[in-house]
Amino acid sequence: MDERNDLILNIQKQFPKLSKGQKRIAQFIIENYEKAAFMTASKLGMETSVSESTVVRFANNLGFEGYPQLQRALQDIIKTKLTTVQRVDMGKEYSTDLEIVERIMKSDMDNMRHTIEMINAAKIETVIDMILNAERIYVLGLRSSKSLADFLGFYLGLILGNVVLVGHGISDIYEQMLRISDKDLLIGLSFPRYSSRSIEVTRYAKEQGAKIVAITDSEISPIANMADEYLTAKSNMASFVDSLVAPLSLLNALIVAIGMREKSDIKEHFNKLETIWEKYKIYDGDY
Amino acid sequence: MDERNDLILNIQKQFPKLSKGQKRIAQFIIENYEKAAFMTASKLGMETSVSESTVVRFANNLGFEGYPQLQRALQDIIKTKLTTVQRVDMGKEYSTDLEIVERIMKSDMDNMRHTIEMINAAKIETVIDMILNAERIYVLGLRSSKSLADFLGFYLGLILGNVVLVGHGISDIYEQMLRISDKDLLIGLSFPRYSSRSIEVTRYAKEQGAKIVAITDSEISPIANMADEYLTAKSNMASFVDSLVAPLSLLNALIVAIGMREKSDIKEHFNKLETIWEKYKIYDGDY
Amino acid sequence: MDERNDLILNIQKQFPKLSKGQKRIAQFIIENYEKAAFMTASKLGMETSVSESTVVRFANNLGFEGYPQLQRALQDIIKTKLTTVQRVDMGKEYSTDLEIVERIMKSDMDNMRHTIEMINAAKIETVIDMILNAERIYVLGLRSSKSLADFLGFYLGLILGNVVLVGHGISDIYEQMLRISDKDLLIGLSFPRYSSRSIEVTRYAKEQGAKIVAITDSEISPIANMADEYLTAKSNMASFVDSLVAPLSLLNALIVAIGMREKSDIKEHFNKLETIWEKYKIYDGDY
Amino acid sequence: MDERNDLILNIQKQFPKLSKGQKRIAQFIIENYEKAAFMTASKLGMETSVSESTVVRFANNLGFEGYPQLQRALQDIIKTKLTTVQRVDMGKEYSTDLEIVERIMKSDMDNMRHTIEMINAAKIETVIDMILNAERIYVLGLRSSKSLADFLGFYLGLILGNVVLVGHGISDIYEQMLRISDKDLLIGLSFPRYSSRSIEVTRYAKEQGAKIVAITDSEISPIANMADEYLTAKSNMASFVDSLVAPLSLLNALIVAIGMREKSDIKEHFNKLETIWEKYKIYDGDY
Repeated sequence: MDERNDLILNIQKQFPKLSKGQKRIAQFIIENYEKAAFMTASKLGMETSVSESTVVRFANNLGFEGYPQLQRALQDIIKTKLTTVQRVDMGKEYSTDLEIVERIMKSDMDNMRHTIEMINAAKIETVIDMILNAERIYVLGLRSSKSLADFLGFYLGLILGNVVLVGHGISDIYEQMLRISDKDLLIGLSFPRYSSRSIEVTRYAKEQGAKIVAITDSEISPIANMADEYLTAKSNMASFVDSLVAPLSLLNALIVAIGMREKSDIKEHFNKLETIWEKYKIYDGDY
Repeated sequence: MDERNDLILNIQKQFPKLSKGQKRIAQFIIENYEKAAFMTASKLGMETSVSESTVVRFANNLGFEGYPQLQRALQDIIKTKLTTVQRVDMGKEYSTDLEIVERIMKSDMDNMRHTIEMINAAKIETVIDMILNAERIYVLGLRSSKSLADFLGFYLGLILGNVVLVGHGISDIYEQMLRISDKDLLIGLSFPRYSSRSIEVTRYAKEQGAKIVAITDSEISPIANMADEYLTAKSNMASFVDSLVAPLSLLNALIVAIGMREKSDIKEHFNKLETIWEKYKIYDGDY
Repeated sequence: MDERNDLILNIQKQFPKLSKGQKRIAQFIIENYEKAAFMTASKLGMETSVSESTVVRFANNLGFEGYPQLQRALQDIIKTKLTTVQRVDMGKEYSTDLEIVERIMKSDMDNMRHTIEMINAAKIETVIDMILNAERIYVLGLRSSKSLADFLGFYLGLILGNVVLVGHGISDIYEQMLRISDKDLLIGLSFPRYSSRSIEVTRYAKEQGAKIVAITDSEISPIANMADEYLTAKSNMASFVDSLVAPLSLLNALIVAIGMREKSDIKEHFNKLETIWEKYKIYDGDY
Repeated sequence: MDERNDLILNIQKQFPKLSKGQKRIAQFIIENYEKAAFMTASKLGMETSVSESTVVRFANNLGFEGYPQLQRALQDIIKTKLTTVQRVDMGKEYSTDLEIVERIMKSDMDNMRHTIEMINAAKIETVIDMILNAERIYVLGLRSSKSLADFLGFYLGLILGNVVLVGHGISDIYEQMLRISDKDLLIGLSFPRYSSRSIEVTRYAKEQGAKIVAITDSEISPIANMADEYLTAKSNMASFVDSLVAPLSLLNALIVAIGMREKSDIKEHFNKLETIWEKYKIYDGDY
């Protein structure tokens, strides 16, 4: 991965052309990019004794539409390098429970907004086609992505039937994927910090000829690189918790879209389930 | 449950005072509230041959700030009665994959906005205090709420250590809760359609003297009624999938707030984990 | 269930023809059959002031080959009625850890011996044919039978591929069995005390037209009654632990016999797995 | 591991003193020990043109009580080297399902007999003391040993309460063992082929100061080497299935012995559970 070097190199390359104030920004970022990535334009301005609009022009000069885009690029670089310990420290300036809760939830909303903006109609359609055309669909998600995998596996299983959720029970992932072939699809869910095991298993599936769909946080994630197609959703690095709110919403939406394509089938399944649920009183009847 | 009757009764009570057009709206809602709950103000106007602004005034006359609030009240009533089959039909007017995906994700954002608005500082603090003061914390979530429970149990377990995630493995929930007592806390996660089993287990915990915190969708949910304290997050009924995006974001935020209270402890834990993760190459090192 | 009445009625019917000493035995058994079922012939003789050989003749008069057969019949009657609390008390006369360990393990060996004696070549072949001919094989085992189901599901999955282990993860058993049909097979594992849920689920599978194979403790168990074919293995009631040693050995043997029928296939699978295991260092290389 | 060399070296050392016929046996074993380990004395005699009694004397000369002991030593050497593929081939000479089933189950009985013979009263007592004195008990078993771990964890959890079954759910083993300390105990279950991960995790627990109890197949297994105390049970290598019948029986017995020490406690727990089981109809009432 040399993305970091790319941005930093670019800053160094532009350096001679920059104004005096912008040079101070550049210097600060090169030396403190991990800190800079979490400063507002105004704070970065204060730190380097320039106006906020100078900071914005600096971002423009580097080819970014605005400061938020530069900031995001900086965050993307360091994101996967931040340890949980550093992430605990990031929350330090908030004093009340309420402030923390509101900050985290608003950050989740930002991630969702960002995720919706990135949606690409063609990619969505390709992914759904790949899912509907696969002979078997393997769903992979480890560590914090496991609850995403459980959710996706549960609903895809209801709609489609030919779904295998790997990484459960007494057998190993490879044993569960023993028969994966070029007619099959692996849906890999992987968000920072990327699990080594998920990457390894995805590589194995690819070697067996299976198609790969990645659900991940960026087009440069290790699993996206191996995928035939990928969808991205922003995960949250604003705390020591891996926030998977936007990814969950994307999965929600994907499941519903698949369901709409298989509508008569799933109505039949749900009719059957409703009968069972009522017979065995699975849901509370008074509500 | 008499909430439905309350709203319908209120409409009937206001009926004499309403304008001719508003009476047609009232009539239509009383007879078709399940349909009305999903119409826009303009569609409801067309259906009853009144203007959109008449619909809005009708909502105001019933004491609602606007039509969206009336609509939400109608949706709340019927929410838990909609079967999955009806919910599949609700998606019918959308034609492209993209439209569906965007609609679902925007609906998740609405839920999040609504959830943030409902946040109550005192409740948050009480819940965190209850969690930090419990001798043991039992985390309960079944069916689609199980992935929420997994997520909460995982992080609370990292931070606190005295956490039991029930409903896993070969033992039954009651066997796992054999020793629950009045020094312990049960955190019950329950969203529509409410699992009968979750209600039953929560009642059992209460009978054993345990404190109850409910994380649920409304103050009138069955599990909120039994709880010593509760937090609410909007779940989604816009499709056959139980959307738990806003609840997941609330849990995220809650976990971070708890972590901030126990900051030195969790830094120590994470320091230890980082060493282990590096030693066993749990995370991808190139990213 | 009138098995109890049958044996007791039979004793009462034979009563007039019995010798004086045998009458005392009969009386004692009728009044204390739950106690008698766990006495040796010699102890029962002492209790009723007769010789051990009188006890044996008494068993013969009732049509049993010997005392062990009578005793087993008594145990079968009460087996499923004994609560765990009674079963804890059954261990009372043993004083050292060693005595307990040896008693339990010897009792497991007796169960195995008994199980091997009951093996029926035709039943074994039928069960294997049913397994190899099914389109999908669902494996069901709940509560203490769940570890048996995990074991069977794991190895059948390796050999055959079309295996679904139900009762795991976030979906409900019925959701996992949504598509079960008359081309499919349910293997139900059920040992005393019989789980109500297992019986209910097996009934559901039968209603959907699926074939049923029961692996259970006796031909009169509830699940055997519903099965197209069944195999029996003795479970242990000598303690509060449900001993599933003989059932596990039967599953072992069944899996190997299926493997031998599919030999070239499984060699191919294992060749592939050995390569993976070596590549990822799954097994310790020094041993 | 040089056990193999030890036995082979010993044969080579004794070689000069052996009779002509015994020399042929020695030669054959050195060159074909993997084959010899599964021959009867009579077959080995035929292969090397000596009488069966010469084979027995050969075993005696090497210091073994009889041929079975020599054979077992040979089997122990190669056991962990046999791949699943070789183990599939080992079943080749059996033609009917019944023969296979009986052979496997009898081999399980042999393992149990062998295991009972090896029981050591002092070790049993030490292990039970260690279990009862630990602050927390972590139960570890991976791959095929996982169903053993589930079983042990389930019952120990009922009896003792302070039990953590690791290797489940979305968190990693190390995260579940984050707080393990020198007041705690790890019970490691490990049978051939030994999982590398289990060895690694046991080493980690030891480094944290925890006491280690190994339940394994021999005193020279990797996990026994790290343990403060260990118990052995014979596992089966007669097929491609890891037979864990004797280990399961040993766990059964161990659980009952622990239960007898905590008798009044577990009666109280079971009384409570019986009430719950009846209330929620967990067990079938007709049986």
